[in-house]
Amino acid sequence: MVQYTETVLDASFAALSDATRRGVLEQLGRADASITTLAQRFHMTLTGMKKHVGVLEQAGLVSTEKIGRVRTCKLGLRGLEEEAAWIEKHRRLWAARFDELDIVVEELKQREKANGRKKR
Amino acid sequence: MVQYTETVLDASFAALSDATRRGVLEQLGRADASITTLAQRFHMTLTGMKKHVGVLEQAGLVSTEKIGRVRTCKLGLRGLEEEAAWIEKHRRLWAARFDELDIVVEELKQREKANGRKKR
Repeated sequence: MVQYTETVLDASFAALSDATRRGVLEQLGRADASITTLAQRFHMTLTGMKKHVGVLEQAGLVSTEKIGRVRTCKLGLRGLEEEAAWIEKHRRLWAARFDELDIVVEELKQREKANGRKKR
Repeated sequence: MVQYTETVLDASFAALSDATRRGVLEQLGRADASITTLAQRFHMTLTGMKKHVGVLEQAGLVSTEKIGRVRTCKLGLRGLEEEAAWIEKHRRLWAARFDELDIVVEELKQREKANGRKKR
């Protein structure tokens, strides 16, 4: 299960690491679209867009269906829950670490103050 | 500003697309660590770990400081706010798309029911 989640996160974070692919997901969040429409929208060749859609499809973020000569793309069944959970966990650890730092800084300030008083 | 955010997201999602690098961030969320400690912890060569830390540092997720012969790694000043915001926005679009789908399915069901009644 852990290994499965790690593989899913590897693939989806890699898929999200490109501005065009993030743009495609935003576009498909508004409406389904053909590869041709997406290629035009992002000023890209059909081959280039097919590659990007392939990466998103591999990560389960997009699904495609070919009817006749048109391949239609739509959002996949995965909704980025694992990704959101990982980021949230990290943000909590991160905030806790910086809170600790705040405490240390506060202690140093108090000590500085106390030393200042003694010197007077 | 948009271009800046896109570049930040490219770098940090790419940094997050590797299980070892995510592990390093989790580790540094608990305590600062030297490159040597991290290499041992993740059963990796020093050179391999230096590369991973380099990627995390480039993305602003880790900062390092060399004192004497030891390079210590700690969490960077960035806390994944932009990444969390992007994922949250996508999840909302995604949920809305699937809600729309639910409505269509519900309408089809109602129509089916109505047709069934007419036939009787």
